[in-house]
Amino acid sequence: MANPRNLMTVSRQFAFCMKGRSYSTSKPDVGFIGLGNMGYGMANNLLSKGYKVTAYDVDSTVVDKIKSKGAVATSCSIDVFSAADVLITMLPNNDIVQSVYSSTALDNARKSAVFIDCSTISPSISQKLANEVSDRDKNSSFVDAPVSGGVNAANAGTLTIMVGAKNKDVFSKAKNILEAVGKNVIHCGDVGSGQAVKLCNNMLLAISMIGTSEAMNLGKNLGLDPNLLASVLSSSTGRCWSVDTYNPVPGVMKNVPSSNGYAGGFGTELMTKDLGLCQDAATDTRSPTPLGSLAHQIYRMMCNSGNGDKDFSYAYQVLQKK
Amino acid sequence: MANPRNLMTVSRQFAFCMKGRSYSTSKPDVGFIGLGNMGYGMANNLLSKGYKVTAYDVDSTVVDKIKSKGAVATSCSIDVFSAADVLITMLPNNDIVQSVYSSTALDNARKSAVFIDCSTISPSISQKLANEVSDRDKNSSFVDAPVSGGVNAANAGTLTIMVGAKNKDVFSKAKNILEAVGKNVIHCGDVGSGQAVKLCNNMLLAISMIGTSEAMNLGKNLGLDPNLLASVLSSSTGRCWSVDTYNPVPGVMKNVPSSNGYAGGFGTELMTKDLGLCQDAATDTRSPTPLGSLAHQIYRMMCNSGNGDKDFSYAYQVLQKK
Amino acid sequence: MANPRNLMTVSRQFAFCMKGRSYSTSKPDVGFIGLGNMGYGMANNLLSKGYKVTAYDVDSTVVDKIKSKGAVATSCSIDVFSAADVLITMLPNNDIVQSVYSSTALDNARKSAVFIDCSTISPSISQKLANEVSDRDKNSSFVDAPVSGGVNAANAGTLTIMVGAKNKDVFSKAKNILEAVGKNVIHCGDVGSGQAVKLCNNMLLAISMIGTSEAMNLGKNLGLDPNLLASVLSSSTGRCWSVDTYNPVPGVMKNVPSSNGYAGGFGTELMTKDLGLCQDAATDTRSPTPLGSLAHQIYRMMCNSGNGDKDFSYAYQVLQKK
Amino acid sequence: MANPRNLMTVSRQFAFCMKGRSYSTSKPDVGFIGLGNMGYGMANNLLSKGYKVTAYDVDSTVVDKIKSKGAVATSCSIDVFSAADVLITMLPNNDIVQSVYSSTALDNARKSAVFIDCSTISPSISQKLANEVSDRDKNSSFVDAPVSGGVNAANAGTLTIMVGAKNKDVFSKAKNILEAVGKNVIHCGDVGSGQAVKLCNNMLLAISMIGTSEAMNLGKNLGLDPNLLASVLSSSTGRCWSVDTYNPVPGVMKNVPSSNGYAGGFGTELMTKDLGLCQDAATDTRSPTPLGSLAHQIYRMMCNSGNGDKDFSYAYQVLQKK
Repeated sequence: MANPRNLMTVSRQFAFCMKGRSYSTSKPDVGFIGLGNMGYGMANNLLSKGYKVTAYDVDSTVVDKIKSKGAVATSCSIDVFSAADVLITMLPNNDIVQSVYSSTALDNARKSAVFIDCSTISPSISQKLANEVSDRDKNSSFVDAPVSGGVNAANAGTLTIMVGAKNKDVFSKAKNILEAVGKNVIHCGDVGSGQAVKLCNNMLLAISMIGTSEAMNLGKNLGLDPNLLASVLSSSTGRCWSVDTYNPVPGVMKNVPSSNGYAGGFGTELMTKDLGLCQDAATDTRSPTPLGSLAHQIYRMMCNSGNGDKDFSYAYQVLQKK
Repeated sequence: MANPRNLMTVSRQFAFCMKGRSYSTSKPDVGFIGLGNMGYGMANNLLSKGYKVTAYDVDSTVVDKIKSKGAVATSCSIDVFSAADVLITMLPNNDIVQSVYSSTALDNARKSAVFIDCSTISPSISQKLANEVSDRDKNSSFVDAPVSGGVNAANAGTLTIMVGAKNKDVFSKAKNILEAVGKNVIHCGDVGSGQAVKLCNNMLLAISMIGTSEAMNLGKNLGLDPNLLASVLSSSTGRCWSVDTYNPVPGVMKNVPSSNGYAGGFGTELMTKDLGLCQDAATDTRSPTPLGSLAHQIYRMMCNSGNGDKDFSYAYQVLQKK
Repeated sequence: MANPRNLMTVSRQFAFCMKGRSYSTSKPDVGFIGLGNMGYGMANNLLSKGYKVTAYDVDSTVVDKIKSKGAVATSCSIDVFSAADVLITMLPNNDIVQSVYSSTALDNARKSAVFIDCSTISPSISQKLANEVSDRDKNSSFVDAPVSGGVNAANAGTLTIMVGAKNKDVFSKAKNILEAVGKNVIHCGDVGSGQAVKLCNNMLLAISMIGTSEAMNLGKNLGLDPNLLASVLSSSTGRCWSVDTYNPVPGVMKNVPSSNGYAGGFGTELMTKDLGLCQDAATDTRSPTPLGSLAHQIYRMMCNSGNGDKDFSYAYQVLQKK
Repeated sequence: MANPRNLMTVSRQFAFCMKGRSYSTSKPDVGFIGLGNMGYGMANNLLSKGYKVTAYDVDSTVVDKIKSKGAVATSCSIDVFSAADVLITMLPNNDIVQSVYSSTALDNARKSAVFIDCSTISPSISQKLANEVSDRDKNSSFVDAPVSGGVNAANAGTLTIMVGAKNKDVFSKAKNILEAVGKNVIHCGDVGSGQAVKLCNNMLLAISMIGTSEAMNLGKNLGLDPNLLASVLSSSTGRCWSVDTYNPVPGVMKNVPSSNGYAGGFGTELMTKDLGLCQDAATDTRSPTPLGSLAHQIYRMMCNSGNGDKDFSYAYQVLQKK
């Protein structure tokens, strides 16, 4: 007797063959694992763009919520593997991603599946997973695709997505789906390179933010007006995103976390996690990062003192005299 | 009997009164002390714009050179004080500026003179000198006016100049002259604020440059293409001047020191000196600067290892494996 | 029917008795994997104290060498597992230790074996291995037992050994063997605690050594006599092992690496590796280590600049002006 | 004709003789400026050992208090200069020491006076003062003599005193007096060397204390017993005064500040000030101090967060998770 999954696959493949028809018939089945702040918005965008999405999260509340938006809910991540031509994972850390990509899960995956991991993890883990995927099915492919832009961009479908894919063809397949959740999808190189770019960016961001905080605080203590200082720095060699777009001094800019009690934005806890991955990668490759590792320590101390949920621009407050 | 200096002053004042004449008659006499790489270009611009310039430097060779361009050469800095309505100093450090602004020199200065110190020194020294100047002659005024833009901008007359002046009137007087040597003259606040802005900018610049070097090097070691990484960073939150305008990786950009053997540009020795002033100011005001002080130490070590004359983007090379 | 292995064991015990050594009948068979600078000396001491040692290393040259001293040579690490009541491993890093403790190797291990890992690795890996060992055979036991003292102490049998063992009984078993290679065998707590103590010590050591180098160099540059400074520090609150026993300034002490071209001693490469493990442990436990991570970066840069083989007191030279 | 001052001196010597003390006739008149926590105890010890002490402090309360112990009170520091064969100053910082050693004060000093500055200040300021002193009176001499040991040692007369003196003769004169307030008086070299030794020691102390705090905290988080860890470190290469004599973990040692709420001891504010002087000296001499400058920043942040009055071993608490 015919396996229903195979029948489905055939009908789907048929649809793919019918070139020139409405593109919706050719939409691959999408699986989504990890419906946190970021993942939920992304899955929602896939649904609103007509994809069939089978979804799972350890928190059944958000599974129910995405189900009410039209997703197929599952109670097990392995079921998502078996229901997906394209599987997207958006998970918190190395260990959880590795446990989701278990042998059992991969054994249940569809043939020629495309695996897109949007989690921010170590480049070396991405490479390991890509090998495991292709060892089982040469026609399947794995890309790392960490995102930037935060919860607002996830909800709006305007994420920037950095993709590590072994070749243009695989990148192209991933891009077709990722354009439903992001507006800027960049091919950064081979597997792991998406993670590498994200980690490099976030390390430099952390350094720039603490540096900006130090400079703005020193200037204030020397009697400068913070608005004037921010303005001059923004058109000088000290110019950076943390100065001209996301200034950490309350009141200098509207609509940034520093002017809103450091709520929202990019949490200190998350930045600290990313800086930990940077340090792992730096140690693996013996790359000196004196400022990057000090920034890591400073953010870790901010977490320990109870400010892990504050925006990472809270670094400015840590420098203040009480 | 009439004091010759007073007679001169009268005749000069008369010239000022004669509105509508060739502008040169209303130009104040300018004194210039410190004809190094920066000062020489600035003095030359003043001459070419029709100012009478009396000049001095400890190096008689450059004095002869500026004399050949039309300056009045002196063999003593005190003679410059007595010959100037507006005195510009461009000197290497706190101690030399203080020794030039000696009691004797100030006693020989013209009445109502405007003192413009373009050196990069401690804000607190600027404030001290301003007090000494006004203690002797309430009608005279002192402004700190450190510059940025390097030797090329000094020669081209396109420096950015950050001015600390006690009020708009004094700023206006200084600006009239400074526009002969710079294209962007900014009033940053009271005396010392020009220095403060410059130090804050340069501290953030040093941090950004080392941070950029760390991120570019980590990315390279993780297998990324430096051009791609620079491109993505330039449009991401890690964006900064050191990434998008002055990239420290050879070959990523043309016409920057890193693509020219780290020659020219902003020397490591000078950056180290400015970072020392930052640390003095941070200690005076008890402002924590963990990354700024570490950047200072890294640049100091670069000087000690014989790279003080390299552009400050040489930080990238220090991270390389040999 | 008699198990041939048991017969062998009996006959070996008998043979030992024939030599008239009362204690020899109770000597367990020892396996040794990893005959590098440290491991070779340790294995040699075991042989000289009458143990039967079955040995393996990836480098067949050292296997031949230890064979000439009386060891049973093998060409495969799994053979060592099957020949040992007590297995000692002395290997370079996490990955190699884990690959040696493979499923196959553990399946070939003797019943009730005692596994002693003298490598310096992550405490969390030690704990993982201990679980794997006891999952297969509840009567077997695993201890981590990193050593300190360097090659000379390994050769002389005077190592200090920090042992993590789940209880006193297991510690006692390990101690019986370890006293053949060390003079100070310390029970630090549960599995992983030997590694933890070693890492904490070495992190503090690295910090103290760089700190001592900074203080001695600053003093020299301020005009102090290094001998006088070392002497005063040694009896003051700045006192530490790096000052009073292993001074990094050439000529201050005899018989230390700094007075011997920084040859021998504790290599910068090894210190850098240990500091990497410290940082992993610090990240795992979210323990801030601002000075420890900066020390790590400094040692990494020393490796990159080609000084990985120098003693770690070479930090003093890195601070010098050229 | 008899100089009235000489007559006074004679009569004083006579008076001392009347008490039958043979040594008293040779006791010089001592002046003491700066009766803070340290200075008061020192002045008191001089009085109790039979010295005539003329004393001054900006706080008239402590002047009254030392008067009740037998000192001659003055209401002006210049009066102390004119009343002293040996002048001891114990003042908080560079600026105050310099203002006390004013031209007027030196003009009022006795001939051939010995000036002993026990303040902790910059070595370069000590050298400057020494020059000013000898410029006025070739027979006078200046020594820097910073102390260590804290308030308890000041009260008990058991301070360690590091002396910078231009030759043995001057050192000997200073030592005669200093032995009344300290038990260990060390000639460190030329003028400024006392300060240099103290700064080098305290920089290393700060580094060791933060390093010890990091190591003890990391060990605790890895599950180690702090007492065991402290014990092993104390006999290993990580051994230092902060581990074995002044452990920062509450409960590990009795009678240290960490076991007494971090009260007493060596205040964080004072350590921060000393580290600032270290950084000034390091910048002056271009001595790299990466760990020393980071320690400075950490202590500065501790001051800013309101812990300046806690013992400097409070660094351990800053690393804790809340």
